[in-house]
Formats: sequence, C-alpha cells, structure tokens
Amino acid sequence: MKKSFEKYIPFVPLKLEDRRWPDRRVSKAPIWCSVDLRDGNQALVDPMNLQEKLEYFHTLVDIGVKEIEIGFPSASETEYEICRELIDGGHIPDDVTIQVLVQARPHLIQKTFEAIKGAKHVIFHFYNSTSTLQRKVVFHTDVEGVKKIAVDAAGLIYELSRSAIEAGMDLRYEYSPESFMGTEMDAAVDICQAVIEAVHATPEKKIILNLPTTVENCMPNYFADEIEYFIRKLPGRESAIISLHPHNDRGCGVATAELGLLAGAERIEATLFGNGERTGNVDMVTLALNLYTQGVDPELDFSDVNKIRDMYERCTKMKVGERQPYAGELVFTAFSGSHQDAINKGTAYMRESGTEFWEIPYLPIDPADVGRQYEPIIRINSQSGKGGAAYVMQHNFGFDLPKAMHPEFGRIVQAETDAVGREITPQRIYDLFKANYIDAAAPYQLLRHSFAEFTDEDGRSHVTFAGTIRHHDTVFQVQGSGNGPIDSFFNAIHGQKMDQFTFVDYKEHAVSVGSDSMAVAYIQLRDKGGQDHFGVGISHNINLAPLKGILSAINRAVSGT
Amino acid sequence: MKKSFEKYIPFVPLKLEDRRWPDRRVSKAPIWCSVDLRDGNQALVDPMNLQEKLEYFHTLVDIGVKEIEIGFPSASETEYEICRELIDGGHIPDDVTIQVLVQARPHLIQKTFEAIKGAKHVIFHFYNSTSTLQRKVVFHTDVEGVKKIAVDAAGLIYELSRSAIEAGMDLRYEYSPESFMGTEMDAAVDICQAVIEAVHATPEKKIILNLPTTVENCMPNYFADEIEYFIRKLPGRESAIISLHPHNDRGCGVATAELGLLAGAERIEATLFGNGERTGNVDMVTLALNLYTQGVDPELDFSDVNKIRDMYERCTKMKVGERQPYAGELVFTAFSGSHQDAINKGTAYMRESGTEFWEIPYLPIDPADVGRQYEPIIRINSQSGKGGAAYVMQHNFGFDLPKAMHPEFGRIVQAETDAVGREITPQRIYDLFKANYIDAAAPYQLLRHSFAEFTDEDGRSHVTFAGTIRHHDTVFQVQGSGNGPIDSFFNAIHGQKMDQFTFVDYKEHAVSVGSDSMAVAYIQLRDKGGQDHFGVGISHNINLAPLKGILSAINRAVSGT
Repeated sequence: MKKSFEKYIPFVPLKLEDRRWPDRRVSKAPIWCSVDLRDGNQALVDPMNLQEKLEYFHTLVDIGVKEIEIGFPSASETEYEICRELIDGGHIPDDVTIQVLVQARPHLIQKTFEAIKGAKHVIFHFYNSTSTLQRKVVFHTDVEGVKKIAVDAAGLIYELSRSAIEAGMDLRYEYSPESFMGTEMDAAVDICQAVIEAVHATPEKKIILNLPTTVENCMPNYFADEIEYFIRKLPGRESAIISLHPHNDRGCGVATAELGLLAGAERIEATLFGNGERTGNVDMVTLALNLYTQGVDPELDFSDVNKIRDMYERCTKMKVGERQPYAGELVFTAFSGSHQDAINKGTAYMRESGTEFWEIPYLPIDPADVGRQYEPIIRINSQSGKGGAAYVMQHNFGFDLPKAMHPEFGRIVQAETDAVGREITPQRIYDLFKANYIDAAAPYQLLRHSFAEFTDEDGRSHVTFAGTIRHHDTVFQVQGSGNGPIDSFFNAIHGQKMDQFTFVDYKEHAVSVGSDSMAVAYIQLRDKGGQDHFGVGISHNINLAPLKGILSAINRAVSGT
Repeated sequence: MKKSFEKYIPFVPLKLEDRRWPDRRVSKAPIWCSVDLRDGNQALVDPMNLQEKLEYFHTLVDIGVKEIEIGFPSASETEYEICRELIDGGHIPDDVTIQVLVQARPHLIQKTFEAIKGAKHVIFHFYNSTSTLQRKVVFHTDVEGVKKIAVDAAGLIYELSRSAIEAGMDLRYEYSPESFMGTEMDAAVDICQAVIEAVHATPEKKIILNLPTTVENCMPNYFADEIEYFIRKLPGRESAIISLHPHNDRGCGVATAELGLLAGAERIEATLFGNGERTGNVDMVTLALNLYTQGVDPELDFSDVNKIRDMYERCTKMKVGERQPYAGELVFTAFSGSHQDAINKGTAYMRESGTEFWEIPYLPIDPADVGRQYEPIIRINSQSGKGGAAYVMQHNFGFDLPKAMHPEFGRIVQAETDAVGREITPQRIYDLFKANYIDAAAPYQLLRHSFAEFTDEDGRSHVTFAGTIRHHDTVFQVQGSGNGPIDSFFNAIHGQKMDQFTFVDYKEHAVSVGSDSMAVAYIQLRDKGGQDHFGVGISHNINLAPLKGILSAINRAVSGT
C-alpha cells in the first residue's frame, strides 16, 4: 500500500548549466508593486469597504509605493466602484500608477477599459493560467490553447488601448502566465514571447512580464534557476520588465523573491505583512527592511512601522503575528540573559566608541529606524540572568546600577521569577529594587545629621559629620571628621557595633523620580568575612543619599538579606 | 549626511568555487531536534509551567521527535526541576534523547551534570559565542580567546562525562559556535576542529556540530555557501554530524534550513510553529510538510495538525497566524472565484480519473493529510465568482446544481455580497437559493394534481397529467398527455398564458434535507426571446419535484427575477 506522502508529485528542478545567480548581489531596490488592494483584499474574511480601501491606498502612497494594483474592476460592482472613486475622487498622485487586474476574457477586458477611463497612469494587467495541471484538469487544452487565450487577449487589449493612449493615458501592459511555476519553462517563454509581440512591446515601451509562484511549489533556489533560464531564453527580454509575484505556501516567499532578484527579476508584487490568498503573498515590509539592513536604500518608508501596522490591522481585521520580522510585537524583545547582556554591551560600545555603524548583537536593525522603542526589549523571566534586571532599571527607570551589584540584584529578581513561574513586569522589578535596597531602613536609622565643611590653605577638604542614629530602641549620637562626607560618616560610626564593614566602592548619579530630580547613591561595603553588601540611598540632598546608602547596606547585611 | 540605512554593515558572501549544493536534492528527512522547551520556552512572555512543559514534551514524543532539548538546567531552579521531573518521573521513552543546553562555563557545566543524573540518553550541548562582533563588543577577546573558552569547556565536559558514561549513560556531545554566521568561516572551522579533538570524537562516536543563524543576517543561498565551505574545510568532518539552528530575522528561516540541507547539513533544530527568540526559530511543521508534499517521508506525524496547534496555543499562550503554512486558519480557504472553480475541477478530475496522485490546483497538500477539512475551503465574498456558490451548495448542502445554472445563481450571490460588503456564510447562500428558487411559488401555483400512466404494447409510456393551478385570483384546470410526466405537464399547460416557454434541460437527484430524503429537480426553460430561466422544485415525490421546478422557473421569469 502506498504511503500518504507518496501521492505527491515532486517538483523536478531544471538542469541549469553555468548558473550565475548565486554569485550576484542585490544592490538596489526592485520596482515595488503593491497587490494589497487586490490579492490581499480578496483573501480577507471581510473584504475592505470603500473607506478602508481609500485609507489603505493613501498609506501605500505615503510609504512610497509607485505602482498599486487597486483591484479587479470587472469582477464586481464593489471593485468597479473603488476604481471609479480613486479616479474621480482625485486620490491618485501624478507619480503613482494604478494597476487593474483582469482575466484574459473579452467581456471582462472591455468592462475594465470602462473602469479606468480618465486615469493618468495605468498598468493593464491580464492573465491566464498556463500550468500543466490546470491545462489538464481545468481548461482541457494544450500549450497552444492557453497561448491562444493569452495572445487573443493581448491583441484585444492592444486594440482597445489605442484610443485611450491617443487621448493621453499613460497605459502600460502587464501579462502574468498564472501558475507559471507549474508550466514547462520553454512553454512559458513561448507564450510570453507571443504576448510581447501581440502588444508590440519594445525596449522603449516595455511590457511587464509577471512570473508568479501562484502556489509555491519548490525551494527558492530552484525557482531562481527557472527565472534565470526564462530570462536567458526569452527573445524579447529587452522589451520586458521581469516581475515576480511570490506566494508563501512553503514559507519561502521572502527567499523566493530575493533569489529571484539575483536571477534577474526587476520588480516585485507584494503586500504589507504578507496578506494574500492562503498563506499570503510575500511581505513587502520584510523585503524592504532586509535591503535596508544590508545598507541598501529600499526606497520605501517604514520609519513608523507601528502606525502602518495599526492601519493594516484596522482595515483588514487581520493580526500581524508577534514574531513577524521587523513588525511583530516580540521581535525587539530579548528574553535570554546572555542576549540581554550582549545588547547592553553593544549599546555601551556604540556610545563609547562613537562608531558610525550599527553594532549591537541580537538586534539586526535599530528599533528606532522603524519607529520602535528600546524600552520593551527586555522582559524579565526565569531565563533572563543578571543583565536583564539591571537593563530594565537603567532603561525604564534611569537607575544605572554598578556592574558589581548586577549579580546580587539579578539573584533577587530570579528568585521572584522562579517563585511566580512567569515573567515579571518592569514595575515589579522596580518594586523589588525599592523594597530590597531603598526601603532597607532598619535596624539602623539616621534621625538627624549635620555637616560642617571647610577647605584648608592646601586646598584639602575637612568635613565634620554629626548625627543621631536609632538602633531598635536605642538612640545615640555620633560625630567624626574626614576629607569628605562619606569619610567623616565612617569615622563617626567607628567604634559602634555597626563598624564591622569597610567601604569598597561608591557611585552616585541624578535620577528622575516622577517629576522630581533626586540623587541616588550605590554603596558597596565589605564585611570582615570578605563578603560584599550593597546598599542604595536616595535623597534630594546629594550628601545625604550616600549616607542612606551606607545604612541600607549595613541594614541589609545585619538582617541577612 | 549619512542616510539611516548606511549605518548597516552588509553581509559579505564567500567566494565559493565549484559550488555544488544548487544541483542537489533533499531526498530524506534530516535528524530532527526540537528546541521548543528551551529556545521556544525562553522567548515566551509567560514561560511554561511544569505541567505545560510535560504536556508539550509528550506531544513532541507523539509527533516522533527523537531528540528534544528540554532546557538550560543550570539557568534557574525552574529549569533544573523540569529536567529532574522528566528523568525521575519516567517521562522519557527509551528511544528519545534529551538534550540540555549550557554555556561554556565551568560552574554551569557542573550543575548541568547534576541535573542529568539517571537519564539514559543525553546530548550535552554547550556553546559560546564566536562572532567578530561579539568578540569585539561583548568578550573583548580574539579568535584564540573564544577558541580557548570552547576547548576548555569541551575538555571539562569530556572529563566530567567519564563517570556517567562508565555508569551506562549514553551521553553524546553537541557544540554550537553561537553567532556562527557572524564568524569568519576559517575561524569557525578552526574552533570546531579543536572541539572535535577535545571531546575525542570519532566517526563511530560523532559530535554534533550545530551551526546556528543566531541572528539571520544574509540570504539563504549565501548561508548554504558557508555551510558547504565549512563542511569541505573541516578536517574532522567524518567525526561530526552537521546540525543547523536557523532563526528567522529576515523571514528566511525555512529556506535557510532547506538550502543548508542541500549544502550538506544532516540535522535541524526547530520548533513547532516557529516559536523562539524574536522572530522565532525555523518552523518544524513547515519543514516536515514541505518534505511531505515532495513525496519524501518527513518521519514526523502531523496528521492532526489542529490538535497540535491547540496544545501549542494553550501551553505557550501564543497564537498560530492565520496564514501560517499548513496550520493557519485560512490556508485551506480559497476566496477567489477562479481558484474555487479550479479546485472544483481538480476534485472532479481526481474522482473521475482515479489518479493515484494529488492533482488539485491551489491546494499544495491534501487538507485531510493534516487532519483538516475541505468544508471551510470556500467562503463566498464579492470576489468569489460563479463557482464558489455552487461549490458551497454541493459541499455544504448536497445540491448539485447543473453547470448551466451556475452563472445565474452566482450573480444572485454576488449581488448580495456587493450589497452587504463582506463575506456571506454558507447558510446565507442556502437561504438565497431557497428564497430565489424553491420558494418561487407565485404567481403560478399547483394546487392539486394527478398522473395516470400506462405502457403500450411497444413499450412506450403514456402519461396523463391533470391539475389545478392558481394564478393570482384565478383557479383553472389543465390536462394533457405525453410520454412522461414533464411532457404531459407541458402539454397540459399548452394554450395557457404560461405557455411561452420551451423545455431545455432537466436534472434531478436525491438530497437530504435534515433527516429527510427529498427529490430536487433543476429545470431550464427558454423564453421566446431566447433567454434561459432556471427553476428548482423539491418534493418527497420524484414526479412532483420537476413540476414544481417548472413552475419555479416560470414564476421567476414572469416576475422578472
């Protein structure tokens, strides 16, 4: 008995001699054509209404798309009306060409010419299916049969376009041998060459030959082989712009488009976020930003990808996936501790080195270049490691913890994530920081204090500290002098029970807490056993913050936290 | 001033001489390794709890995955506990190998050996980052520095594994030069060769060398070039299994995996539905079913993809996208009329020809092979064309409309979709059919009727029809004879006002309406102007159904519907 997978007929790749595409590179943007309003729209559970289509159209124009397939005007009244509204309503800028799709059938072609009356720039896009399978099971004809359908349509369109062109319309032709990838390549070349001739295309007045992967049926390298072969064999190649229309049935739409460009294609039909029949069309956003991150100008503006995503989700009622390249909610989020650490270090490197390049690991694009934020990059869960919590404290709250303190605070956060078994929010991280450090106000508490300071004739500072400290029920006075506030404070507590720590390190900076600017001081003490203890003090008074930090460290140490 | 895209450093492809991978084909499944419970889990907003991880693990086992990376046991208590529970709880079948990930750091390696005690088959997977960028901005070291980290870890692991192996554990080694694709290929070869030697790998006891696209940074063909180069250059190639771990930052994870297999890789680390850091890992479901639709046994069971999707969405709280290949809600839905028509014809071709191959356009896989249904394939909107409505009537309701009737009914449905501006449901299509045809009971109505029938000595039928017909307020009797019920009925109404139609065609079949079996008759009449009119009659009585159909056609014609 045959196994279920044995009923599928494998794709048979061409044997391409002297293959050239793998040695090429893509160094400029293709001609972009959006098929959002046609292929994308027709694949929606609820197709867009007129208002939504207009909003979508204007967004495409704002992005910089110059060729926009607006529909299939002969297919329904709705489609016809959107075409008329775009033209009559003056929505189409002078540098934008609308494209209309039509099957290679006379009555539909005629209706399509009615639909485009008065438009300035039009691509008249006609198609018929040419594949072996469709010839067999759908059309019951041979190559000559489907070629005749194409050529007859091309001839009719050429004739019917005469008057429009004479009246001043900039009308170009596009032909798609639909199901191209299921068509024998020599047959595809033959049909396309006949169409080139039927519309009298020339190198000055090129026809667009659009080669769709109507259903993606092979690896992208085999596709590239077919495109290279097709282009080499096509006699009228100089009279044609080679266009691709990749679908995504095998999840390779992006690769198919990119390798197709290497193979000589010059134009891509795509949609925002890959909307389209079944698994969708190739995603224009990904293609454009893939170029961008290779230092190539995509000639499209995705500098505010969130805004475009919002429009898309509103008009189509579809959802952009959380892991969609460049646009998904989670793609600028690093959960892994080592990733977070590397991003921190890359950010620091860029700041310190002044490099003119983008050199941050795990972020293939600067989120700011697509209007997105660093802030949500780090979420903290049990996998995050020590770097993540410190990153959140810095990026979300402005607390720049000393590096030596990261492991201690990381462990506090990890204990919490292990305990709750899920990610915790930045706010919760801040709360843990506050509870463990800033609020560590017992058993030692500074009730009152004063500093006296003078500079001697040698320019040395002399500071005297006097203070009142509470320890449980005991209140006692201390006094000491030194060359600065911290030194004087340590001298003041010398001889007290709390005098079992030596001062290791100190860092202080300003931080905004709400609308307030405060000083925050991080203190590292070491006990007689060699163990380090960290404390944090916060105050409007830059002298007081470190004292509170010292008491925080001592309090944490003596209470064993 | 520099433009924003100019800050990105383009990937520089290898110059590969005598490239061989484009001429190869993938003819068998790779070794599959799931990293769902590690890379996938760590990238979740809420990582899975123990119960969810166990359910997910068992699903992977059921699918047929034999190598499963279960976590990073040294990273947190949660991770450690899941490892212990899998081992101590007896969850791991004898033919399944668990894989544990660890950084190349001694204290983590030691903790990982504790975590795996008692397991039967283990892949001990260690990694360190080797790329130019990470050496520069994160580790501040050179190639020798990262090589030493790798080799030291390999040596320690080799030593620590002696006792476990002697105690009977089947322990293998896996090494990942993390950020491989940002590493100079000769350096990657050098580091990996040193690791092969440090763990004493042999052709009989191979090490897994896992080459990740930690961040996808180039087109998949350049990746394949690197893999082919790496494999050619690696002295210990025969002692290694070459594994890939593709991410999806450029949307090319599937292509990267597939072209990497062409280039000589033998193993793929992947996740269900492409979960994983940022844009995710490569999707195991797509890779496996891409093989399947090429007639290659994927050695994984996705025959009930909905069930797997449900488990996935429940445990990860992620959503599988509507256009995800093979698994998305919309991927077996054809909205376009021409697609629907071709699917209908392909289905008919397969049924009639008895072909042993899958030969239906626009459906690259038989939905039934992944446990999905034909039923939701066709949804009807303003783009659907005439085939869709007829398809729904047949597949959802069992009404096999004659082909000549499709355009008329298609226009009725399209007028409705144009009017409401969105998709309509199959039930609404049925309602339109019923309202327009079955319920077309005025102005002519058959109140009573009788048939008398005999067969003469020549075997010819003689049928006499007598009936009472209401027309508005008039009730009249008719009678006629003929060679069958329809003929006698037409002869009976001869001379009446309704006698302006000639009979063109007729089709009748049984249909289930609820639990009832009824006869449905489709009637095609032609008026004196040459225009055709269709009617439908439905009755328990197979003689009455066509009469009702004729009156339906007449009523529709005279009332101008």
